[in-house]
Amino acid sequence: MKNMNRAELHKKNLHAVFYPQSVAVIGTNKMKGTVPGDIFTNILKANFQGIIYPVSPREKSIGGVKAFKYVIDIPDEVDLGIIVFPSSVCKLALEQCGQKGIKSVIIISAGFREVGPKGLEKEKELLDIAKKYDISFIGPNCLGVINTDPVSRLNASFARKYPTEGSIAFLSQSGALCTAVLDYARAKNIGFSKFVSFGNKADISEIELIYYLMGDPKTKVILLYLEEITDGPGLMKAAREVIMKSHKPVLILKSGRTEEGASAAASHTGSLAGKDEICDAAFRQAGIIRCENIEEMFNIAIAFVYQPPPQSKRVAIVTNAGGPGVLTTDAVVREGLQLAKFSEKTTLTLKRSLPTTANINNPVDVIGDARADRYVAAISAVFKDENVDGVFVILTPQSMTDIDSIATEIARVANQFDKPVYASFMGQADVSSGIKILEHSNIPHYILPESMCKPFHTVYNFNHFVVNNMPEILVSAHPENQAARKLIDDFIQAGKKHLNEFDASGILETYQMPVVEKKLAKSPNEAGKMAAETGFPVVMKVISDDVFHKFDVGGVVLNIQSEDQAEQAFESIIQNTKKNLPDAEIRGVQITRQIQNGMEVILGIKKDPSFGSVIMFGFGGIFVEIFRDVSFRVAPIDKSTALKMIKEIKSSELLSGVRGTKLRDIDAIADTLVKISALATDCPQIKELDINPLIVLEKGKGCFVADTKIILES
Amino acid sequence: MKNMNRAELHKKNLHAVFYPQSVAVIGTNKMKGTVPGDIFTNILKANFQGIIYPVSPREKSIGGVKAFKYVIDIPDEVDLGIIVFPSSVCKLALEQCGQKGIKSVIIISAGFREVGPKGLEKEKELLDIAKKYDISFIGPNCLGVINTDPVSRLNASFARKYPTEGSIAFLSQSGALCTAVLDYARAKNIGFSKFVSFGNKADISEIELIYYLMGDPKTKVILLYLEEITDGPGLMKAAREVIMKSHKPVLILKSGRTEEGASAAASHTGSLAGKDEICDAAFRQAGIIRCENIEEMFNIAIAFVYQPPPQSKRVAIVTNAGGPGVLTTDAVVREGLQLAKFSEKTTLTLKRSLPTTANINNPVDVIGDARADRYVAAISAVFKDENVDGVFVILTPQSMTDIDSIATEIARVANQFDKPVYASFMGQADVSSGIKILEHSNIPHYILPESMCKPFHTVYNFNHFVVNNMPEILVSAHPENQAARKLIDDFIQAGKKHLNEFDASGILETYQMPVVEKKLAKSPNEAGKMAAETGFPVVMKVISDDVFHKFDVGGVVLNIQSEDQAEQAFESIIQNTKKNLPDAEIRGVQITRQIQNGMEVILGIKKDPSFGSVIMFGFGGIFVEIFRDVSFRVAPIDKSTALKMIKEIKSSELLSGVRGTKLRDIDAIADTLVKISALATDCPQIKELDINPLIVLEKGKGCFVADTKIILES
Repeated sequence: MKNMNRAELHKKNLHAVFYPQSVAVIGTNKMKGTVPGDIFTNILKANFQGIIYPVSPREKSIGGVKAFKYVIDIPDEVDLGIIVFPSSVCKLALEQCGQKGIKSVIIISAGFREVGPKGLEKEKELLDIAKKYDISFIGPNCLGVINTDPVSRLNASFARKYPTEGSIAFLSQSGALCTAVLDYARAKNIGFSKFVSFGNKADISEIELIYYLMGDPKTKVILLYLEEITDGPGLMKAAREVIMKSHKPVLILKSGRTEEGASAAASHTGSLAGKDEICDAAFRQAGIIRCENIEEMFNIAIAFVYQPPPQSKRVAIVTNAGGPGVLTTDAVVREGLQLAKFSEKTTLTLKRSLPTTANINNPVDVIGDARADRYVAAISAVFKDENVDGVFVILTPQSMTDIDSIATEIARVANQFDKPVYASFMGQADVSSGIKILEHSNIPHYILPESMCKPFHTVYNFNHFVVNNMPEILVSAHPENQAARKLIDDFIQAGKKHLNEFDASGILETYQMPVVEKKLAKSPNEAGKMAAETGFPVVMKVISDDVFHKFDVGGVVLNIQSEDQAEQAFESIIQNTKKNLPDAEIRGVQITRQIQNGMEVILGIKKDPSFGSVIMFGFGGIFVEIFRDVSFRVAPIDKSTALKMIKEIKSSELLSGVRGTKLRDIDAIADTLVKISALATDCPQIKELDINPLIVLEKGKGCFVADTKIILES
Repeated sequence: MKNMNRAELHKKNLHAVFYPQSVAVIGTNKMKGTVPGDIFTNILKANFQGIIYPVSPREKSIGGVKAFKYVIDIPDEVDLGIIVFPSSVCKLALEQCGQKGIKSVIIISAGFREVGPKGLEKEKELLDIAKKYDISFIGPNCLGVINTDPVSRLNASFARKYPTEGSIAFLSQSGALCTAVLDYARAKNIGFSKFVSFGNKADISEIELIYYLMGDPKTKVILLYLEEITDGPGLMKAAREVIMKSHKPVLILKSGRTEEGASAAASHTGSLAGKDEICDAAFRQAGIIRCENIEEMFNIAIAFVYQPPPQSKRVAIVTNAGGPGVLTTDAVVREGLQLAKFSEKTTLTLKRSLPTTANINNPVDVIGDARADRYVAAISAVFKDENVDGVFVILTPQSMTDIDSIATEIARVANQFDKPVYASFMGQADVSSGIKILEHSNIPHYILPESMCKPFHTVYNFNHFVVNNMPEILVSAHPENQAARKLIDDFIQAGKKHLNEFDASGILETYQMPVVEKKLAKSPNEAGKMAAETGFPVVMKVISDDVFHKFDVGGVVLNIQSEDQAEQAFESIIQNTKKNLPDAEIRGVQITRQIQNGMEVILGIKKDPSFGSVIMFGFGGIFVEIFRDVSFRVAPIDKSTALKMIKEIKSSELLSGVRGTKLRDIDAIADTLVKISALATDCPQIKELDINPLIVLEKGKGCFVADTKIILES
């Protein structure tokens, strides 16, 4: 995690990255088609509203602008330094920026971390200089920064073309992807507020950029392409804050999904937590919208930016082609939206204004030979209907279809209503002018009509469930954490890494988790007595730091019904263990009552390299192993989140009292999840914790930790 | 199912639909922008290679061509009649075609089945006339037919533009979708061999068209948009034949996926078979490639048509942008393809020819400033590598990227190798000329680089697993079917629809299915004796035609260990049943031995309106109900298919002997599946059959039908 002071510093310095009064391009030259040359030209061409200073060791002037040999030679104040020197010279250039008092810098140059250890070394040197001078920098190894705000008009990038102004901010870890995005967006008339390629994020990361965009009045939606999450909790916090305070959605395309896919299906909770599932869960927890690809990202972004959010999920479809209408209906249902049921009035209006061959039910088919008048009649009627929350308009180009007029009319009619409308003009060549009209009228257009569904649902979801329903992130403050910490510290000092059930249970008890009461017998006789005190049936297990798999060594006996049986069990457990593991140091045999008529679930903690302590919930055996029916959350969580975790897995139907099952104590599971999340937060030394199983009784009767183990960080 | 004679007739008559020497456009006029006018103009404009005769009640000539009042007035022979009259006149026009001796007709006119019962009536009249004169017709309610073959050049459609010649045949039930497809394809330079809008398919259906295309040398791939499957087995048979005999892939986009989605998750096998899952299974069984949307359909089609099939699944990625490289790698892994591991030689070549900052491992990153030379070096090197089966080329438009040269060079290099290459030039505006070059060079281009994966995998799969591994469709010929049929006929005659376990088991036994031996006791005393004969433990169940849910009425007792217990069980079963269903006529109490240590699975038959008898396999309870982990096949199936059915569900790991489970007798399950599939085929009166559970013992020890019921068609 970043130093707090630097985060504060970045907040102060980021404004000048986007709104500098003066810019020095350090290391530029006169050569067209090279990065140093193109960046200077781009700034000049975009009609930058401040002053630009070329800094070049060799040239007297560039593009008619007087050049300086060193940045320190510039006689005036400079707000933003853009370094385009080869990597070997960047260090010196940044040092001089510091001397000149420049606090905001973009380092375009490549040749750092991405080329190996030597590059990483150079990158660290840059950071040291930045710290020395309280400089904040973007990069290195990036395409640059664009701010389309007319008061700035800064194109500090080597992109081919300056994008149009818009409300979408795009942040990218990949520079080369940016050029594709800019080209794609230009063709679709999608504008940007801010465009940042942040490259190796050696200093300023996506997190500070997100915070900055929270306060940027030009930005309505934040898009982020990310390859590497270095500070997961920080990213979550930033996204949550932006969403809650500014109601701006954060969309992330995260690559590297399959990195750990191969090692995914293992048999215990520890290795279950494949990174990407956790990333999914963490994003959802923070209200972040995760996108599958660039196209989907912009499909959703334009829905947010161009149209009002829908009040609910009831969609009307208006089409001149039956087939695409059916395909879209399929997609509507699959996506979880609803086909609106029209009011009688609407049906009557449609009947009056459409030919008899038309379909006046939803999806409304205005028939292949429809011209603009029929579209207007249908769209107006469904827009007016109270049962309609949004309209999807589909068109295919028949010979009589007046494509451009229809596009114009859709925009005109839609303007009169505060409901969203999306369109899909199918085909490509003939429909292109119509699509242009839609795009310029801020009607989101989708190549496939099916693609209208996900954006609609996403916007609906965001406005109804994410913005106002974000659960509190708790900062854990359990008084018991002292006790747990002390226990853990002692174990660590004693050199213990794997804690057996007896020791692990002790830690859980400090959080009042429902651990089955345990006794530790040292002799057969003692075992018999303890078993009788406990009450039959009991379970007996060997306790030893050297035994990891108690069942495998014959160290467990279930369903013991009498003192005699308990004494026998003691002996057989000791014998079996000694036979299988002659060197194991046995602490004794644990006696607990056997919980009956319970349903078994699994709870766990696992450490994720990006997100820290993660909580896991699932059912044992095949449910987790084959169906991967598990849920994850980044710790800490509150009870409402714990309840969501339980409900979101499919097998939790087994707890719900339907289909002949008994209603189980879901509340008690949720309490236990909250407690392990507190434990995980209080004691980050816990690398892995398994509660397997937690036995859940009927509603109101609680649950019990029947077995557990903990692995501490070494 | 269609009359065989008509199917034969269609085979004969279809050639003239595509290759007529002479065409009459019946009902045409001089009005531009109307269907009757446009069709005539379209045929003329496309430079049709035969003779065209306008038939118009009012005009002397159309477009300079002499017109006839009636088709019978034409003095010469006419091969193809195209009827464009209003629906009311079509009947007469078709009648006259018959009189004229025209055997092949396209009826464009709308106003039939699609407008309701009256239209359906008119449609039936058309079919009657067709039968009377041995006419085969396409339509009504369609866009028409296009044949781009230079020897014909027939554009008998009201599409806006004539498509370019190509190897893709497109068949569509929706007319309006066709215009969108033609426009889409034009923009992407995708050509067609044949293009057919078959509308209401009152006579000629997709099935006969598929058979026709099997023999069409101009067609390499068959694409089909379908809304309604009227003859599922016929479609499957046609597709299988085309695939096996001509190796042409059949791609289908089937809409109406969610039609029955709502009623999907029910609690018994009968209602489990939601139509769309069955459609999925049936398509797979027939080797049909099911597509999600139009874009995916063409994405896959161009891969089939333009490039050689890959030898295996190892892909090399060459990119100038890291981000998209990572995204594509994710997609490669997710799709089940492999990233190729380069040979040392390749790595060396890449090292020599690329800059040090480049990534010479897969995905190969030639770096943002790469020009064509670097692409050529990288692509050539990976093409030559024996470990590479295909190449994905990705480009993003940096300011120095020479997009068009790179496109040209990709095509040139790819031409030297018999391995597939696909490309994704990301962006839209700047890259468009490069994309055009690729398209004209038959390099499949994809907007998203991720979209290259599915087509690659589909082509690979088709060539390696579908074409040569299609299981035989068995025509069931069990000698036992006489016995089963007799039993069923008797039940039907006795007015029985729901067969109880005892009766249903009798039917299963005629196929030597492993039904547990049953005895039917009429008194407590008899029950005791029969139980002793059977051997304890036994299960006892009430047998009555009036009891559908034996458990619910207290009509089942498990785990009976002695004669005494059996006598008591008899009495309690009778008492419980009488208490709960006073009017039930009880036939007795069934006694069977209780199978122990078995794993329970479910087998079933269900009747699908499109595909007929369908076989189902799954595990009981939560696996089927919550996870919908079931497999389906259209009956009859052979044993290899039965084994596939078992293996393709996730929970079948429970049978496989891994993770501490016992290896079960999978072979015995497969045998039982084959037997119920034979039963389903022999006795189509079976509407529904449940074997729930089939108890499966360890490998070699068989399986047992522990409960079953049958519902007959009423």
